[in-house]
Amino acid sequence: MDAPAADNTRGTREAIEAWAEALGSEHVRADEAVRDRYARSTAPTGTRPLAILYPGSTEQVRQVVQIAGRFGIPLYPISKGRNWGYGDACAPTEGQVIVDLGRMNRIVEVNTRLAYAVIEPGVTQGQLSDYLREHRTGLWVDSTGAGRDASLVGNTLDRGFGHTRYGDHFLTTCGMEIVLADGRVLQTGFGHYANAKAAYAYRYGIGPFLDGLFAQSNFGIITRIGLWLMPEPEAFCSFYFSAPNDGDLPDVVDRLASLRQQGLLQSAIHIGNDLRVISARMRYPWQRAGGKTPLPRELRAQLRRECGVGAWNAGSAIYGTRETVAATKKAVRRALAPYHPRFITDRTLALGERVIRLLNRVGAGQRLREMFEIGKPVYELLKGIPSDEPLRGTAWRVRDPDPGKPVDPLDAHAGLMWVSPVVPATGEAAVEVMRIIEPIYEKHGFEALVTFTLITERAMCGVTNLAFDKREADEAARAAACYNELMDALMNAGYIPYRTGPAGFGKLARNSSVFWDVVRQLKQTLDPSGIISPGRYLPGETRPQRHEP
Amino acid sequence: MDAPAADNTRGTREAIEAWAEALGSEHVRADEAVRDRYARSTAPTGTRPLAILYPGSTEQVRQVVQIAGRFGIPLYPISKGRNWGYGDACAPTEGQVIVDLGRMNRIVEVNTRLAYAVIEPGVTQGQLSDYLREHRTGLWVDSTGAGRDASLVGNTLDRGFGHTRYGDHFLTTCGMEIVLADGRVLQTGFGHYANAKAAYAYRYGIGPFLDGLFAQSNFGIITRIGLWLMPEPEAFCSFYFSAPNDGDLPDVVDRLASLRQQGLLQSAIHIGNDLRVISARMRYPWQRAGGKTPLPRELRAQLRRECGVGAWNAGSAIYGTRETVAATKKAVRRALAPYHPRFITDRTLALGERVIRLLNRVGAGQRLREMFEIGKPVYELLKGIPSDEPLRGTAWRVRDPDPGKPVDPLDAHAGLMWVSPVVPATGEAAVEVMRIIEPIYEKHGFEALVTFTLITERAMCGVTNLAFDKREADEAARAAACYNELMDALMNAGYIPYRTGPAGFGKLARNSSVFWDVVRQLKQTLDPSGIISPGRYLPGETRPQRHEP
Repeated sequence: MDAPAADNTRGTREAIEAWAEALGSEHVRADEAVRDRYARSTAPTGTRPLAILYPGSTEQVRQVVQIAGRFGIPLYPISKGRNWGYGDACAPTEGQVIVDLGRMNRIVEVNTRLAYAVIEPGVTQGQLSDYLREHRTGLWVDSTGAGRDASLVGNTLDRGFGHTRYGDHFLTTCGMEIVLADGRVLQTGFGHYANAKAAYAYRYGIGPFLDGLFAQSNFGIITRIGLWLMPEPEAFCSFYFSAPNDGDLPDVVDRLASLRQQGLLQSAIHIGNDLRVISARMRYPWQRAGGKTPLPRELRAQLRRECGVGAWNAGSAIYGTRETVAATKKAVRRALAPYHPRFITDRTLALGERVIRLLNRVGAGQRLREMFEIGKPVYELLKGIPSDEPLRGTAWRVRDPDPGKPVDPLDAHAGLMWVSPVVPATGEAAVEVMRIIEPIYEKHGFEALVTFTLITERAMCGVTNLAFDKREADEAARAAACYNELMDALMNAGYIPYRTGPAGFGKLARNSSVFWDVVRQLKQTLDPSGIISPGRYLPGETRPQRHEP
Repeated sequence: MDAPAADNTRGTREAIEAWAEALGSEHVRADEAVRDRYARSTAPTGTRPLAILYPGSTEQVRQVVQIAGRFGIPLYPISKGRNWGYGDACAPTEGQVIVDLGRMNRIVEVNTRLAYAVIEPGVTQGQLSDYLREHRTGLWVDSTGAGRDASLVGNTLDRGFGHTRYGDHFLTTCGMEIVLADGRVLQTGFGHYANAKAAYAYRYGIGPFLDGLFAQSNFGIITRIGLWLMPEPEAFCSFYFSAPNDGDLPDVVDRLASLRQQGLLQSAIHIGNDLRVISARMRYPWQRAGGKTPLPRELRAQLRRECGVGAWNAGSAIYGTRETVAATKKAVRRALAPYHPRFITDRTLALGERVIRLLNRVGAGQRLREMFEIGKPVYELLKGIPSDEPLRGTAWRVRDPDPGKPVDPLDAHAGLMWVSPVVPATGEAAVEVMRIIEPIYEKHGFEALVTFTLITERAMCGVTNLAFDKREADEAARAAACYNELMDALMNAGYIPYRTGPAGFGKLARNSSVFWDVVRQLKQTLDPSGIISPGRYLPGETRPQRHEP
């Protein structure tokens, strides 16, 4: 990391004054407390911004970049800063100025006929989901496990994914508004034509399709996107199953991949290991483990039994008419017969809730209620309803007693680093990834929390993570070392991450010079002074040169 | 159009010598006959190339661009040159050097496990389709109506579409190899990492997703792509129906769009007007019309009756297990009840063939056989099997007697210009487009041949075309005038084409300056001397400056 910028230079002071004039002084913060707050990270180390700007409109974002260009000060735009485990709100390097787009939280349009929304970066999953239900639009928004306050735009631009038929977020974006480094406003797709009728219905526009340039990059500040929404199906059914043995993984992957490839299942399908599920329910059993890490083998087996989870646990949903859902259930039941998949609908869920209430009256049903409380948010994610519950897993290795409810990972002192290789959707590949990562996790005193998500018909994102207690310096250092070793080993074996945070950006160059040379040339063209997010997804990029005006 | 380049300048001669040395002299042609052949076009006027180069490998393409750069001579790469009605093999301007990639026709890899192929630009729809069947791969390639000899890469790079679940061709590409103007070879997706396991299974790679830059543009020469193939489903069923009245269009669109939005139908769904279907069977009835154009109303009504077609005719396919296909059929039957959809499977088709054979023996069944001959290629396209039959429609207005079999449009003297606006998938929008185009077609003496294809869950490509006889100068001139008026009227109303040919490139700029400015900047970055396809999808671009070496 660079040394903190000399934030008392004349240029910086003048820039901050110019921003204050443009945005109103209440929307420019450079005081220690606020800067410290934004410097917090789930990573072993965060970075401290020079200041934080809160523009309220595209026009104000234009002014922000123009001033930044004038003074040669780097900007780091965030939507809501909930990029948990991938850098959170932190810029890749010290001393950038955060542009917090949280005030730009307008749902600009919801078109129920064509099933899309146009939103600003500050719109959260919870906000849009609530809006769609309150206005009885009959539309669902695909959500991630990052909690109700996470930004939809932010996740999309990092190419995140959720749980429904619209699980690939970049794929369901249509039309972007982007403020370029020189203050020009670029509309992609057909959006740059006056009155274009299909601006939010057809992604490509005519001529080159530019949207891909603005995801996982630093070529502009996205101030608005079109987002396709999933029409509520006539019928809905979720299913889940557990496979008892570690060795069942390849079989589970192959069976689910085949259902996906045939187009019978259309959603992102999640396959989680025991610890992924257990960590959603409880924290690391410090006491029972006698303070030892990684989790002893016998204790792990015991937890599996206690929590009623398998070595591998998978679930997904079926959408359609009553008849097509029933027919697809048959195909799923047949394909997954050895694992006895269980099917859950709104009706079975309502019935379960009634049973639990009855049992509670007689003082029983504690375990069932627990399972229910964990299962329900997962079920709801399959209908696009976000929840804060999945955030609980981030605090797996935190030493404090579990508060029993989701807490902001930063408040919980959760240390979190994702290692997320893309894996071909075959059993062998999944096994190979496990063989690579498990010994490395163990060597550094961690246990691998793993999900394989079938994100397309041919590929999975292997989402694994280091969980540690931010306050334990030694553990954080081991996490950083483990992260490096994992990334190197996976990339050497050809398993490249689908996404990464600042700790990974430097690793992306490897020997692939032409690709990254071209990316650098594009950056140079669109942002010649390197004003926007220097270093983000651009290995080897340094901070912009400062030209004192 | 520019004047033809001075093809006897020293630079040109030297360049041709250099190319001959690099490729072998038999792979460089500058003789009049070959240049004339490549200058043929279905458009009112084509452009004549300076020479034609036939590189046989990526390495040779590198040498081709390096020599072009040295001498400042523009290159126009084509795959197979079957870009019918969108410029065919012709460069946007006179005097470019065609790089015919037809020799690069290797099927580099077919992965049956992950269902993809890696192919070069010269691979045709027919070639890959045959290969997949001969090798019993259980995989289908999505094909267009451009005939068996059309290139898959070429169509993909123009963002064409076909008929199956994999109908959006750009969406099913994964990983490109691109020769840049300076001879560097760029691998997109994960392809630039050695041994990347998911290079052809996951499109985005990490960092910006660059593939979109290379479709409908002129930023490089694509020498290889990964192409996802559709696994043959357990069960297959096609359906079609006719709506009797012109006024049924909005209702048909809304019903089909709803099935598509719910994910019940996943293919590109084609809705053709009467003339689209009739033109696949016969040529313009010059005699019965007494030589008059456009087609008289009563004659049109008569043809409808004779051919047994409706005002609007639609069809698509259902893929899945036996049970899901049956369940989806129910939903389709219910949604389209007023139009009595008919369902066709391999079994009903075989039965039909037997009935026809029987009827033929007793000298009957002529009409049924004709319908069958037209219907079968459509049915087969729904299974990814290409055919030359759809090419017959291109010769609708040719005055020669119908040879009764498909002929290369250039040999048939077919004049063809597509006008293909993107239309939101709503009935009103379809009606508005018809209201705009029909009077314009009629005014210029043409009748509108129209298809609306539901290409996504929210948008249709309205594919309409001018058909004329290339040998009739007056008709060709009227076609050009009609084209201009159609494009202007549609774009004014916000209906922007999904694709265009040289006649349309100049129309794309309109008032949308930032978008095209950015495209020009990107072009300048990736091809500073403007060597590759100057003018292609880049309004206002001119030919490169020549630097005599």
